Amino acid sequence: MTYCIGLYLEEGLVMLADTRTNAGVDNISTYSKTFTWEVQGERALTLMTSGNLAVTQAVIHHLNAGLSSDSDPDAQPESLYSVASPFQAARLVGRAVRRVYVEDAEAMRAQDASFQASFLLGGQIQGSEMALFQIYSAGNFIRATQETPFLQIGEHKYGKPILDRALKYQGAGVMDGVKLALLSMDSTVRSNLSVGFPLDLVVMRRNEHRLTLKYRIEDNDPYFQKLSRDWSDALRAAYQHLLPPEWL
Amino acid sequence: MTYCIGLYLEEGLVMLADTRTNAGVDNISTYSKTFTWEVQGERALTLMTSGNLAVTQAVIHHLNAGLSSDSDPDAQPESLYSVASPFQAARLVGRAVRRVYVEDAEAMRAQDASFQASFLLGGQIQGSEMALFQIYSAGNFIRATQETPFLQIGEHKYGKPILDRALKYQGAGVMDGVKLALLSMDSTVRSNLSVGFPLDLVVMRRNEHRLTLKYRIEDNDPYFQKLSRDWSDALRAAYQHLLPPEWL
Repeated sequence: MTYCIGLYLEEGLVMLADTRTNAGVDNISTYSKTFTWEVQGERALTLMTSGNLAVTQAVIHHLNAGLSSDSDPDAQPESLYSVASPFQAARLVGRAVRRVYVEDAEAMRAQDASFQASFLLGGQIQGSEMALFQIYSAGNFIRATQETPFLQIGEHKYGKPILDRALKYQGAGVMDGVKLALLSMDSTVRSNLSVGFPLDLVVMRRNEHRLTLKYRIEDNDPYFQKLSRDWSDALRAAYQHLLPPEWL
Repeated sequence: MTYCIGLYLEEGLVMLADTRTNAGVDNISTYSKTFTWEVQGERALTLMTSGNLAVTQAVIHHLNAGLSSDSDPDAQPESLYSVASPFQAARLVGRAVRRVYVEDAEAMRAQDASFQASFLLGGQIQGSEMALFQIYSAGNFIRATQETPFLQIGEHKYGKPILDRALKYQGAGVMDGVKLALLSMDSTVRSNLSVGFPLDLVVMRRNEHRLTLKYRIEDNDPYFQKLSRDWSDALRAAYQHLLPPEWL
């Protein structure tokens, strides 16, 4: 399993992924699920992956090798360094997923393995707006909006309530986003053993066209540990201050 | 879907269930999933149900009709008014589930319907300890303990983080439990349309041997609405007060 979150905020994007992969509880590994493409001052794109590791690694391979056009074999291969907008980047990732489907899905089905993969893609390229997308295993995708400013892939349930309640696009800074993403991840890591440390955090401020921060958080990270403790204390204090009902 | 929570606290038990049943998003009904058996000063037992409605209603029917012994046909039928302890009550519910399995499971399997049902049973009977059980569709069960003071059935993920962080057995009053159960339910209702109002709340204080409170909460309940709003405000204030990391 996996948990990845993308937050689309007024100041920019915050994206966070775990690194655990597992095939059963007795077969656990660490793989980064976070991939970045950056030309400072011109483009910054971050892709986070969830699902079958063979599928997602094949998608990354195609993206790095560049994808030839389906219709025009003489066209220059496209890559995330050549696309002109985040929307075109999402289309390219979708094409890569469809190519892997053509290559592998039938053989996987014969072995009862399902073709499962989903992706978060966020970033900005000079001359176009910052955007955050969720790309499905069919290669189609949706976009985060001001009304729904976060997207999640993988084990999304435990970490959703805090985002539902506390996250707003309007006026939100990336620092708010980092704290909320870490709290959402903490709730998930506590409840699902197949989501685990280290974590990969990426921040991209709007109109900087670069990776503002790419940071790995280990399980003994003092800030994360303090955040988790302080949050538990704050929640206990908060519910104790809520007014009791009259009927009890 | 369903969401039911049972909290096992030093002062007593708090149990909360929604009332929504659905067979698809276009076939939604309201059924109470909360059943109580009480002889004031002697016994109070509360059963909450999740799963296939035909299965859970058949289980309730057997419990109300009384179950004859499997091995001794001359023995008096047992009911939740005759058992001597919560443990025996849990065994009786388990026997009822197994009887329904014998009656219905094969015909259900022929129609690709799975035999799914789970239950929370809590209460106390004079002369024995208060206890809270989760009973599975195989009729076996587990018990809440001081280390793990809550049990959930149905859509459990959204409502778990708040309980994980804030709930302790030691020193916890039923008022703490009511607030936390309502907050856990609120997180679930917001995220899963198949969990819905009204809610049924039962409180049983230890050694009272009665239903301290049995209360129905409608979706326009002013206390619940205020609790939900206040909690969102408190969470936003709490995360904004958390210290920022040094590395951003």
